[in-house]
Amino acid sequence: MTYEAVVRVTLKEGVLDPEAKTIRKSLERLGFDIDDLHTADEYVVEFDAENKETAREEAEEMCEALLANPTIHDYTVEVR
Amino acid sequence: MTYEAVVRVTLKEGVLDPEAKTIRKSLERLGFDIDDLHTADEYVVEFDAENKETAREEAEEMCEALLANPTIHDYTVEVR
Repeated sequence: MTYEAVVRVTLKEGVLDPEAKTIRKSLERLGFDIDDLHTADEYVVEFDAENKETAREEAEEMCEALLANPTIHDYTVEVR
Repeated sequence: MTYEAVVRVTLKEGVLDPEAKTIRKSLERLGFDIDDLHTADEYVVEFDAENKETAREEAEEMCEALLANPTIHDYTVEVR
């Protein structure tokens, strides 16, 4: 069966996020008053798996192998 | 009151996504069998607004002004 895994990769607490800083400054320059801004990368991956549990395991393997860098990233996987 | 807007920016149908293509190829080279892969950028923005409706409007203004390019992007805003 085909499953869709939504992988959300964020920077770990304390890791500098220059992209977020730049976007925040740009929004402020445009007149928006921002309290905080974070970014995340999302990957929606479709693939075949035996069941939802093996699909989750496979998506987590993809994170460990490529999508996330465990030194600086946290990730969540939602399978549907 | 402070609101948190989750802005999700995706490429419009038909717009080339070289990042997704590269990631898919890399995963396939690692042995994963992928049916499809899409990417999205997520921005979590915290800011003060009078109520949830004005918070949504302000977040949509941020999308139109900076976060999304209407020529190539679709976006969704979820306020919480």
